Amino acid sequence: MCESNAYLKDGENEVLLMESVDIIEPYENGLKLMDIFGKQLFIQAKIKDMTLLNHRIILERCPPFNVQESTSCLSKVST
Amino acid sequence: MCESNAYLKDGENEVLLMESVDIIEPYENGLKLMDIFGKQLFIQAKIKDMTLLNHRIILERCPPFNVQESTSCLSKVST
Repeated sequence: MCESNAYLKDGENEVLLMESVDIIEPYENGLKLMDIFGKQLFIQAKIKDMTLLNHRIILERCPPFNVQESTSCLSKVST
Repeated sequence: MCESNAYLKDGENEVLLMESVDIIEPYENGLKLMDIFGKQLFIQAKIKDMTLLNHRIILERCPPFNVQESTSCLSKVST
């Protein structure tokens, strides 16, 4: 099986958000994730990086408090 | 192997862009893709959808001619 696990980057830590992710789609100003069982998760986050061979998808929260930033959510790599 | 193929949506067609994609990262106002052999590709595009079980990553070009649109590249599903 080629699903991946999605982790949410929280400072230095990576918190497991969803296992066995099959589908990822942009959704409004965030992402929709669906796992292999059909469970859906909506999160205001962007893809930070993905390494499919390692089955890892790293997400990063879009700051909801900054409208100007959040319009460009998903379009830039945060440094 | 759990790599996927990346396709670029061009109207009704989907053109194979890169096979055996391992890594996807946001890069400037587009994406960086790297395949399992280390070959890199930079494209001004956003992820339209991904289905990992089907090994399919569908990308969609960000229109370079529309600055307002391109700032929100990757943040919305185009309809």
